[in-house]
Amino acid sequence: MGGQRLLLAVAGCLMCTWGLRAATLDLTSISGPAVVEQLLHLATFSDDPLPAVTRLIFTPNDMKARKYVKQLMKEAGLTIREDPMGNIYGRMHGSTKTTGAVVTGSHVDAIPLAGAYDGTLGVIGAIAALKALGEAGFRPEKPIEALMFTSEEPTRFGLGCIGSRGMSGALTVETLNDKLDVNGTSFQAASTAAGYGGKSHETILEGTRVKPGSIAAFVELHIEQGPRLEREGLQLGIVSAIAAPAALRVFFSGDGGHAGALLMPDRNDAGLAAAELALAVEKATLDAGAIDAVGTTGFLQIGPNSMNSVPREAKLEIDIRDIDAARRDRTVSSVLKSVEEIAARRDVRHRVEMINQDPPATCSQEVITAATEAAKELGASQKALVSRAYHDSLFMSQIAPTGMIFIPCRNGWSHRPDEFASAADIETGVKALALTLARLAGTAAAGEHSEL
Amino acid sequence: MGGQRLLLAVAGCLMCTWGLRAATLDLTSISGPAVVEQLLHLATFSDDPLPAVTRLIFTPNDMKARKYVKQLMKEAGLTIREDPMGNIYGRMHGSTKTTGAVVTGSHVDAIPLAGAYDGTLGVIGAIAALKALGEAGFRPEKPIEALMFTSEEPTRFGLGCIGSRGMSGALTVETLNDKLDVNGTSFQAASTAAGYGGKSHETILEGTRVKPGSIAAFVELHIEQGPRLEREGLQLGIVSAIAAPAALRVFFSGDGGHAGALLMPDRNDAGLAAAELALAVEKATLDAGAIDAVGTTGFLQIGPNSMNSVPREAKLEIDIRDIDAARRDRTVSSVLKSVEEIAARRDVRHRVEMINQDPPATCSQEVITAATEAAKELGASQKALVSRAYHDSLFMSQIAPTGMIFIPCRNGWSHRPDEFASAADIETGVKALALTLARLAGTAAAGEHSEL
Repeated sequence: MGGQRLLLAVAGCLMCTWGLRAATLDLTSISGPAVVEQLLHLATFSDDPLPAVTRLIFTPNDMKARKYVKQLMKEAGLTIREDPMGNIYGRMHGSTKTTGAVVTGSHVDAIPLAGAYDGTLGVIGAIAALKALGEAGFRPEKPIEALMFTSEEPTRFGLGCIGSRGMSGALTVETLNDKLDVNGTSFQAASTAAGYGGKSHETILEGTRVKPGSIAAFVELHIEQGPRLEREGLQLGIVSAIAAPAALRVFFSGDGGHAGALLMPDRNDAGLAAAELALAVEKATLDAGAIDAVGTTGFLQIGPNSMNSVPREAKLEIDIRDIDAARRDRTVSSVLKSVEEIAARRDVRHRVEMINQDPPATCSQEVITAATEAAKELGASQKALVSRAYHDSLFMSQIAPTGMIFIPCRNGWSHRPDEFASAADIETGVKALALTLARLAGTAAAGEHSEL
Repeated sequence: MGGQRLLLAVAGCLMCTWGLRAATLDLTSISGPAVVEQLLHLATFSDDPLPAVTRLIFTPNDMKARKYVKQLMKEAGLTIREDPMGNIYGRMHGSTKTTGAVVTGSHVDAIPLAGAYDGTLGVIGAIAALKALGEAGFRPEKPIEALMFTSEEPTRFGLGCIGSRGMSGALTVETLNDKLDVNGTSFQAASTAAGYGGKSHETILEGTRVKPGSIAAFVELHIEQGPRLEREGLQLGIVSAIAAPAALRVFFSGDGGHAGALLMPDRNDAGLAAAELALAVEKATLDAGAIDAVGTTGFLQIGPNSMNSVPREAKLEIDIRDIDAARRDRTVSSVLKSVEEIAARRDVRHRVEMINQDPPATCSQEVITAATEAAKELGASQKALVSRAYHDSLFMSQIAPTGMIFIPCRNGWSHRPDEFASAADIETGVKALALTLARLAGTAAAGEHSEL
């Protein structure tokens, strides 16, 4: 009889610990409508009338948004800290002091006339996930942090993902020195006026850069900004890779002339050079032989742009993206080669400016697995997919195992006031995030106290 | 002795009439510097400060210019009449009443920031030529008229050569009804306010249209607006043909999309359709296989014209010129076919607007011969050449044997304030014009009185 009791007790303990680990955490405190209410409240801090959201870094509406985010973090029981660039962290302490934190976050700033879900879902949803984990009695081994990046949109300073670039070390003092807003205000001046900042861009970046090992994993919850999940009736997308753009600006110039008087053999038409280059961009992209390779001549301007004038100058802006860095850079090289060849053949002068060439990212298998299992646990339909827009996750992937979880958005629309995600999909996404974080952070052993 | 005297008398009479016909008319009254002085005085009637000349039809400076032109016509002893569109004629009467007049003229209106010689040379020079013929005692068989077209430049009403179009019948009431200036003023209102005009565009055109047979020949003296005569050190160009443009506007539209998210197979990029069409215009032009064929995509605009947006729409303006109407129209057809083919292949919507398609002109052999002999008589160097810009002569050629005489202009520059022709070249041109007119008008038989 004693042997049977012992067996039961052991089984009970095992079941108990196993249960605490594998039993579905009680995430019923996560309410889609409640999260939507918070998102819509956040959206009221906008320079434009709702439903349009315009919120640029360090403007008054952005300061109100930050205040609201910190209030929610406090209500979730998180310990708040902010860095000199203005990234805001809310920490749920773990039982260990020595490992990096599991971090989840996104941004709340918005380009002019945007919607209420892009970025904000990953901040409000992160806080809601951590709050629910706490209320469910979950005690993580590693600390978990909700993070609001200071700015993801390039609108004010002409550089996207400025916060995650700073954190990952992908931002140099030289680059930050060049980034002035339309009024000529520097990041240092603007951040300092907002209560962040510091003496110089150097000290600001130093205080922002993440110490190696302090982030164990990074997860970002985001609307898909594409139509695939909705079309296929799926609730979640587990991102496998994040495409990154290489962007370049090309100038051609010739001698122009009168459209009637200048004979064909005497021309060096900059517009035709541009036409050839736009088609070469398409060809180089298709020659990459991969569905994930995209290339676009989105901007093309010729001058003087008058019907009876042979074009004298042309300016193009070209965007080339892929999930494979080497393949994307081969496409860029091919385009650069075409610039030279076309310029020589057309006898026009040429100039190229590389605008950026960020490396694409492959998501971490650990994060992908955790998110996939979270989806299974929820019974949510999901598929793996590529993120074709880039996010702060692109830069975080340089310093930590990173992954993203997508939810569908209506028609795939984003960057417009009628951007929309349903309360049901939002609830699924936040719950999936919470379960993913729990898996990544691990459960504290029974009896261990949270580190402080 | 009586027989000898008779013979001498007859010989004398014959020599006398032959002499009056073939002896170099005494054109020493034609002074290059004097004509230049008149051109520079005319140039002072300008909306912009000299040397820039801006003078739009029926504006106050244009009215001053008209007054000056009529004053010069009067001083030249010409009989003045004006038609409802504002074309101004100064007639030197001939000995016959029943044949058409030999007419010579050009325009004095000027596009913004133009020079002092474009068009004006052919008006001031025409009056100077007729004055000199009168002072040389020349009595024409056919009447000779100096003509100032009411407007050649398209600036105010969006239609070039409006006066010669009206005279030749190439202008319909419907077209004129559509031509409003930037303030919405109609031609009827503006011309009537200027002292011309009439009840309606119909009555205005009726009163302007030239009666068949009333113009025996038309000659226009003009600066070359090209560099060939100057480069080859020639004093005169005898125009053999006048190129004419066909102009069309093409619109493509697709669905656009996000440069990162929209995969290549799913695109219908309007910018790439435009790029293909611009290159097709070049190819169709070169395929015409003639040096005189020119084709230009001078205007190209894509939208939204943003680097991370797949172009959703494109607008092109295409200018195709040739001296051979059938060949030019074959080039236009080829381009139209390319529009259809490209639109189908790229899966974009398309729309074409023909802006104009005026027939080119071959100059009259009679006028060419008269001008060539005039040049020989002057001992002036000359060559035959094509006019690549079009002029009022293009429309006059539809109703009368027509020719043009070019003089060199510095660097071929025109439509700019530093446009320049030398006094020496101007003198040669006006003298050549006078001799050409004399040949075309024929000499009145001795004893015949000028018709009134």
